Amino acid sequence: MQMQVKIGLSGFGHVGRNFAALLAEKEGDLSRRYSLDLQLVLAANSRGAVSAENGLDPGLLGRLQASRDLDGLKGFTAGLTGPAAVAAAGAAVWVEATPSPAREGFEPAFTNMKLAIAGGIHVVTLSKGPLVHAFAEIMELAAAAGVKIKYSGATAAALPTVDVALASLAGSRITAVEGILNGTSNYILTCMEEEGLDFAGALARARQQGIAEPDPSLDVGGWDTAYKLLIIANTLFGGAFTLEHMDVQGIEGIGPADQEAARRLGGTLKLVGSARLTGEGYILQAGPQILPGRHPLAGVRGTSKGIHFVSDTLGPLTVLGGPSDPRGAAAAALKDIINLYQRG
Amino acid sequence: MQMQVKIGLSGFGHVGRNFAALLAEKEGDLSRRYSLDLQLVLAANSRGAVSAENGLDPGLLGRLQASRDLDGLKGFTAGLTGPAAVAAAGAAVWVEATPSPAREGFEPAFTNMKLAIAGGIHVVTLSKGPLVHAFAEIMELAAAAGVKIKYSGATAAALPTVDVALASLAGSRITAVEGILNGTSNYILTCMEEEGLDFAGALARARQQGIAEPDPSLDVGGWDTAYKLLIIANTLFGGAFTLEHMDVQGIEGIGPADQEAARRLGGTLKLVGSARLTGEGYILQAGPQILPGRHPLAGVRGTSKGIHFVSDTLGPLTVLGGPSDPRGAAAAALKDIINLYQRG
Repeated sequence: MQMQVKIGLSGFGHVGRNFAALLAEKEGDLSRRYSLDLQLVLAANSRGAVSAENGLDPGLLGRLQASRDLDGLKGFTAGLTGPAAVAAAGAAVWVEATPSPAREGFEPAFTNMKLAIAGGIHVVTLSKGPLVHAFAEIMELAAAAGVKIKYSGATAAALPTVDVALASLAGSRITAVEGILNGTSNYILTCMEEEGLDFAGALARARQQGIAEPDPSLDVGGWDTAYKLLIIANTLFGGAFTLEHMDVQGIEGIGPADQEAARRLGGTLKLVGSARLTGEGYILQAGPQILPGRHPLAGVRGTSKGIHFVSDTLGPLTVLGGPSDPRGAAAAALKDIINLYQRG
Repeated sequence: MQMQVKIGLSGFGHVGRNFAALLAEKEGDLSRRYSLDLQLVLAANSRGAVSAENGLDPGLLGRLQASRDLDGLKGFTAGLTGPAAVAAAGAAVWVEATPSPAREGFEPAFTNMKLAIAGGIHVVTLSKGPLVHAFAEIMELAAAAGVKIKYSGATAAALPTVDVALASLAGSRITAVEGILNGTSNYILTCMEEEGLDFAGALARARQQGIAEPDPSLDVGGWDTAYKLLIIANTLFGGAFTLEHMDVQGIEGIGPADQEAARRLGGTLKLVGSARLTGEGYILQAGPQILPGRHPLAGVRGTSKGIHFVSDTLGPLTVLGGPSDPRGAAAAALKDIINLYQRG
């Protein structure tokens, strides 16, 4: 028996378009393997939204080249965006894919999410902002409304982090987490280490490859790592941490001499986000660290990522994952939707 | 609101006793984090069972030194074992922890499991035998009865394998799996490589450390790896594979010259179980392989394990996990029980 699930999507940039394309590509698989019939009923961006009560054609949407191409589609309503779009969608799941780097604010994602929650709609978010800004508040609202918040796409996307901790380590007590969570920074450090480039040269290479954004400061400044680590730590350790609890450092000041020093110590220099249980509670950090050569994250190269957990009953566990791109991020959101309905 | 779940346990060796101990140790955590009140109502071994409708004291059971110590406990019924025990338990979850290496048969685990399924009881099995012998049959019976079969403890225990594939890679298509799934063999190969021992010397060391069993043939012969890989492949790729589909080789014939040859090629020799999609369908193998130096499983040392997945949308994913011991195996069973009741 197929279960029909109506989905609203906010944010129609690279990730949003890839999400639509993936829904079309995976339609048969979703039906066969999960008995799910996922219908995209609304797709909004900052200009407005296209909607159709009985489902848009995700294949058509996925083939659009730019988010502004939504405007020209049949069923487009100018100004139907943000809260108005959430209310209009009539969806069971709201996918929030608007860009919201936390430093520049967390709207419209935060308001959209609260409205969805109040309407009894599950939220799958790729936007980190609201979770960085108000993790505890969102989780309390969701619990009270009986809806779920899933955020694989906001916590390293193609690399599973929170779902491994919550499902694969269920019942164990996690006492430490360390992660290489930012592909751009790791790519830069890898270029410096393996090709002898300095920071500026490696950054230029990353830009050339389309890996670094025009303004790379969230990535190389350690903030993206800090945001992800903060969300992961709040998920695992009770929700009370904020950015003020974190010491955040970037890799802009790293030079070949630092990497050489790390090598002399038998290790390698990485940008690491970590949370550790100590006598004074959990210590959260994001910054450059020398990882010993045999550390399970020491071999993470290029845009790859990794996370390492220490638990009481299930031992140490390391997950090494693929580089993130818009398709991987979209696939992480699709995974979250499937897991809303997949049990045990 | 706490949910009370009655559990029956078959098999009271190291793993069974650790399971009881863990239930006692985690009682508070299970209640706080998962709202679960797990009651062990019956514990059986080959002689009989102790039972109590309102729950045995798992702390007391966990402190027993040997499985025969059950005999002396209040509430022990001689001969209450196998199917009779399943029927008597009145449990919601049946934990099957009887030893059943597939080569020596798959009873009493198989009969116990079928009886539990017919009774509408979820099954958490640490015994591989029934799944190696009759995977498709068990899954069909379970689907028809509306019960779940969980088997983390039969597929590398403390190393998550199937739950990562089913939950963390949900929605993606997995096209290849490779795993270092047997800690004993990997320990022996590591000793040979790092300390220059030959196979016999390394095996002797493994026995001395309590890592190798008196008869290590299932481990070093590649069979344990093959069993686990077979269960994983059946889970991911549709249930139709049997041991006849597999080419199985052990590490008994490996010598220092083989490892030296692997080193010259820049790689390392490991006992690997693998399933790969080819033009002729899936090819399943278990045997020694040279892994390139940068292969994500190349650095798995000692009794550690690892698994590597290739997927279409979520990229390559590697999980490196803790060595298995009876406590880790028991924790894997507890994780399965939690995930029977934890949603989304």
